[in-house]
This record gives sequence, C-alpha cells and structure tokens, in this order.
Amino acid sequence: MAKTCSEKVSMITCTAPVNIAVIKYWGKRDEELILPINSSLSVTLHQDQLKTTTTVACSRNFQEDRIWLNGKEEDINQPRLQSCLCEIRRLARKRRNDEDPNAEITLSHRVHICSVNNFPTAAGLASSAAGYACLVYSLSRLLGVDAELSVVARQGSGSACRSIYGGFVQWKMGERQDGTDSVAEQVAPETHWPELRVLVLVVSAERKHVGSTSGMQTSVQTSALLKHRADRVVPARMDDMIRAVQGRDFATFAELTMKDSNQFHATCLDTFPPIFYLNDISRRVINLVHRYNQHYTETRVAYTFDAGPNAVIYLLQDHVAEFVQTVRHFFPPESNGGEFVKGIPVFSASLPDELIRAVGMEPTPKGISYIINTKVGPGPCAVDDPTLHLLGADGLPKKTP
Amino acid sequence: MAKTCSEKVSMITCTAPVNIAVIKYWGKRDEELILPINSSLSVTLHQDQLKTTTTVACSRNFQEDRIWLNGKEEDINQPRLQSCLCEIRRLARKRRNDEDPNAEITLSHRVHICSVNNFPTAAGLASSAAGYACLVYSLSRLLGVDAELSVVARQGSGSACRSIYGGFVQWKMGERQDGTDSVAEQVAPETHWPELRVLVLVVSAERKHVGSTSGMQTSVQTSALLKHRADRVVPARMDDMIRAVQGRDFATFAELTMKDSNQFHATCLDTFPPIFYLNDISRRVINLVHRYNQHYTETRVAYTFDAGPNAVIYLLQDHVAEFVQTVRHFFPPESNGGEFVKGIPVFSASLPDELIRAVGMEPTPKGISYIINTKVGPGPCAVDDPTLHLLGADGLPKKTP
Repeated sequence: MAKTCSEKVSMITCTAPVNIAVIKYWGKRDEELILPINSSLSVTLHQDQLKTTTTVACSRNFQEDRIWLNGKEEDINQPRLQSCLCEIRRLARKRRNDEDPNAEITLSHRVHICSVNNFPTAAGLASSAAGYACLVYSLSRLLGVDAELSVVARQGSGSACRSIYGGFVQWKMGERQDGTDSVAEQVAPETHWPELRVLVLVVSAERKHVGSTSGMQTSVQTSALLKHRADRVVPARMDDMIRAVQGRDFATFAELTMKDSNQFHATCLDTFPPIFYLNDISRRVINLVHRYNQHYTETRVAYTFDAGPNAVIYLLQDHVAEFVQTVRHFFPPESNGGEFVKGIPVFSASLPDELIRAVGMEPTPKGISYIINTKVGPGPCAVDDPTLHLLGADGLPKKTP
Repeated sequence: MAKTCSEKVSMITCTAPVNIAVIKYWGKRDEELILPINSSLSVTLHQDQLKTTTTVACSRNFQEDRIWLNGKEEDINQPRLQSCLCEIRRLARKRRNDEDPNAEITLSHRVHICSVNNFPTAAGLASSAAGYACLVYSLSRLLGVDAELSVVARQGSGSACRSIYGGFVQWKMGERQDGTDSVAEQVAPETHWPELRVLVLVVSAERKHVGSTSGMQTSVQTSALLKHRADRVVPARMDDMIRAVQGRDFATFAELTMKDSNQFHATCLDTFPPIFYLNDISRRVINLVHRYNQHYTETRVAYTFDAGPNAVIYLLQDHVAEFVQTVRHFFPPESNGGEFVKGIPVFSASLPDELIRAVGMEPTPKGISYIINTKVGPGPCAVDDPTLHLLGADGLPKKTP
C-alpha cells in the first residue's frame, strides 16, 4: 500500500479523527500496557472539522527515527511513542515472516513521522487520541500490517484506541493481563444516526492544569468513589448506553452522557488533592442545558466535559440553530471576534422570549470563544493526493508557505 | 429556671453556636424525622464570634404562637418549627405529669419567639443549625424540659442537633425507625484542643442556589456514589476522625476533613441535575491550601466547604498569622473595604518569598470579602442579663434603636 515517492523514500499520508467519550475512561489497572479499570464508549467526530494528518516515510537513507509534531521536532524516545513503533514493527515482521519474506521495504529502515492537527492544541480537545490513532494507522499502512490496530494505538494513549474506528465505538476493558482483549469495537457505524450533531463549545484557551495521565493515577490511588464507579456503576451504564445508541434513543443517550460526565468529574473532586477541570463557565453551560431541557420538558441537549473546561454538546440536527442562538444569547461573543460558529454552517434562529426567561441566567460576555459544529464521522483513512504529504522527497517536513 | 419579667409574661434568653462539620451530613433516610444516611462529626464554633440569640416568652395573654427572625415576623406554621414546638411541649407535659403537676407555667399558653444572628445570613453559614438549637434549648429552659435535646433540635434541622453541645460533637445516625437513637454526643469538650483555630473565609455574598433540603433529597435519589459513601466510606472515616480528635493529631484531622469535604461536593456533582456549591474562588482557596501545605511538607491547614462557596479553615494557633497574611496576599482586599479580619485579632506577619513563589498563584483581588477568626467553643447557654431580652414586657420585639 505504501506509495513510493522517490526511488529511496516510501511514504504515506493518513488522517484520523478525534473522539469524545460519552462513557468516560478514567483510571488504569496497568500503566505500562494502558489497561483501563472500566470500559468506555465514544463518538468519533467528523474529520471535516477535526482531524490529525500524519505522513510517515521510511528510507534506507534515514539515519534515525524522527518525529515532527505541529511543525516542531519532538523526542522520538518518549516511552509511549516507542511502544507504538516497536509494536507496529513487531507485527510487520511477524507478517513478513508469515507471508512475504521478500517485501520491498526493509523493516530495519528508520522512519520519519510528521503530524499536524487542524485544530489548536489549546482548544483542549484530546489531540493525543487522534494523534496516536493516526500514527499507528499510517505506520500500519506503510509497513503492511494487518492486525487489530486498536491494541497498538491503546499503548500510545488509552483513548486513541477508540479513534481507530468511525461512528460509535466501545473500548472493552478486557480481562487478560497481556491486554490482548482490551480492544476497541464499533458499536454502530457513522451512518447509523445521521441526525446526531456535536457542538464543541470552546470555553477557554487555558491549558489544563493537571494532565490526564498523572490525574488518573492519583484518582486510582486516592478515590474510593472511583473504584465503586468502575466496578459497580459503569458496567450497567455501558449496557444501557449501547442500547440507547443502537435504538437511536436520544433522551436516554443524552441523560447517560450527562450523568457519566458528572460522575467522572465527581471522582476527580474525590481525588486527593482534588482535581478540577470544570470552571465557572463550564458550570454555567451545565445549568443552561438543564434549564433548556426543562423548558421543553424533554431532554433535547446533552453536555459532556473531558479533562478541561470545554463543553461538548450532543443534540439532534433540528435543535442546532436554536440552541446555538441560545448559547450566543447567554455568552455574547466579541462583536469583532471573528466567526462564532465554525464547521458546519448554522442557520440563524430567533429565540422565543419564554425560552430566554426560562433559562433566566445573567449573560456572560465572551464566556465562550467559539463553537465548532460537527457530526459523527468515519475512522482513519489514507490521503490519495501525494501533494498533501507533509514530508518532502528528502524525508524532511515541507516548508509551509 | 424561667425568668418572670412581669406578672403575666415568663421569658428567657439563650444563645447557641454554629457548628462546622468535618465529616459531612448529606442525605436523609427519613425526611419526616430527619434521620441521616450516615453519622457526622463537627466542631462547635465559639459564640464570641458567631451565635444565635433567642428570647422565648409565654403568657396566658398571648393569642397565638408567633416568631420573629432577624427582625421580621415569619410563619410559625412551617412544619419543622411545628415539629420542635410540639415535641418540646410533649416532653414538658410528660415531665409535669411525672414530677410537677402544679407547675407555674401552663403548657397551653402560647409562646412568642424572637431570634437574631450576630452574623449575616448571606455569609452562608449554617444559621439554621444555631437557630434551631437555640430555639429548642430556650424552650426547654422556659418550659422545664430535661430530656435529650439533640433529638428535638434534629427535627428542626438535622445539623442543629450538633449545636446542642460544645467542643467536638458526633451525630450518631442511629438505627431505630423512630429516631430515638439518632442523637448528638460530645466527643471532646471545647477545652480539649486549645490550639485549634478556625477561619471563616467569606468568599461571596451570593445566596446558595440549591437549598440543602431539596439538594440532599435529589442526591439520595440520583447519586450512586452517595450511597457508597454513606455505607462504605464514612463508617471507617468516622472512627479515624474520632481518634484524630481525641489524640489531637492535626495532620490526620486535617487530611480527613479535606477529603470528606471533597467527597461531599463530589456526591453533589454526581447528583442529577448536578449541584454546585464550590465556585472558582473556592477552588483557588483549595489550591492555595494544598500548595501551602506542600511548601512546608506538612499538613498545616485544612479547608472544608458546606452548601456554599465559603471556606472554613482549620489550623493551629501558631500558623494563623502567616496563613491569614498568605490569604491577604493572594486575595488582596479592597483598601477601603473595612477590616479584613474580624473576630480574634491577628498579628501581622511577613511572608517568606519562597512561600509566595511556592504557592505561585495569580492574585485574585477582592476574591474574599473578609475573614472571621474564631476557635472551638461551648454549647448553648442562658443569658443572665434581663436587659438583653429581645422581647419586651408586652411580648413583642423591642424596637432596635
């Protein structure tokens, strides 16, 4: 599958999506292999709005493995990157030995990796999930690996295993000590629920204070509630969530999503010292959603928050215009601050006075920087156009104009 | 014991303290009798700084029971007030029948009640605890009741039962359906730990959004974590806390206090819809305390938060001056905003540069309105000076000048 760009350099470029969990992953039972203490479930977002693009190349002329992330060379020796590289090479070697002893690409060749996100890291979206999924997918295509890639991506960043598939994806925690059954599986494809929409409300450009790796370690060590959540709450909730997705039951999907986000943040607060990812703006968004739903006596909108203050909103297409207008009303943006809604265009809507009164909150100017309007999307894929490679024929990042 | 102020009006005035739980009460197993789902433990604060004063009077000339709170007449028929009145009268009647069939005060006489706090209700301190303790204590003195008053006060407001005693007070959840074993007990008297100090950091004058009665109801109905906390976490924690208090082990006392506050707020967040009592300023205080302790590699200061954003800080006398100065540094008060520290005077202290650097937070001007410096104090007591009665000889509130 690898495209040969010159006699000496084999190269491929792929893209991979961001995913947003509706049943959250928080806590590892094995730090090395990245095995979680509970299963989780996510929605893969569409790459038209949010994606990582990665070019991988290999050549006998490369002196060493190298990686560039968002234009800056990074240390290739970080353990999680090495886990993924080693594992992909091991799988490639295994396949060669089995099937194709004379393959064109020598596995001892060094690789160059160049990766960019089309969204700011500061937006607080889980760029590591898309990043590791893209890395593992690209390398597997370059080196001709045909194995369960979610197991490899998981060893880069836990939630990355869910970005290996499109649509609605379950990460089964598994039972085995070697992690071979801790895999992602598609629950439903991206075409399953076409009316579902996703809004990312970018609350703040602040970087998160506590990284998720160390945060979840402290939680596992100190929170009695986290253990109870993982052992007793999540299993039943996963079953309910899978049924809600399969049956396109929005109200149940939405309620479980909100409850699980709240419980994840509750276990962060039960951690010692406590971890806070929600801020006062996040809390206002939560109140806004509950009052909006209460006004309609129907669960039309759900929020979820990862390890940061940004809200991700799930809702059905028919309610997007009105809800966006509601957000704009209660978080009036800067008038000269560029476009407030990015992504899929949103028609303007008028707000019923009763709705504004029912929400009844004091507006918070500039509380939300912008909204990304997106939907459910497919998994990683290769980019056919060779002009889109991020590395040049020399194996070094192209100069961006 | 009742003082007769005129031929026709019997009157007594008492005061009662505020208490601040270090193992929190959140959730009832019986709404009517106010029986909790877990035991709790609190510190009674000194009445020199924070107290409720209540005058109760009875007379054959009063037409009906009446109550004035903080200068305003309130509805005497609210169920919890009626629970306390009925229960005290029942106990008084029982005693009369047993001991003193010809007592001077006829129990069919109506009562007038007048109560004031020496702290603003808006300060978010649990005024209902001091209020009900004071009401029940005053009525018991007026009517000559000699029973376990914590059982009566509990039926006014759960945490009020702990304000019936000074020092360190446990509210045992009990097991019986009729609540007769759900009583407060003194774990240690107010003289037990003379070095212990309490700072109330008044974060905001906002009234709490969700009242604790309805809040804990929703928590019991919706939070899986709350049940686990009550059943599995609190029992062991209570034992540890009692040992820490008895042994004056500040580090353990402090750590358990912080963990329990965090866990209470975690169960609020796990409630659906979620309940938030902490705001961004509360979180900054939490971070400040952890960084302060970390700097000294010793737990010198503990925070706890009730159903509101105000922090209550426990620490030892020797560290008060420096910690107050630290708070002043990171939450600089308005220069013309009156005294920043009320209550027990605090000497000024200089702050080591290393401490400021170690805390390393951006100062938040006016984040904290003022601090009340207080200590552990005694339980309710009668006021001897009859000029301090809040009701006049006519049984109506005295005009305040």
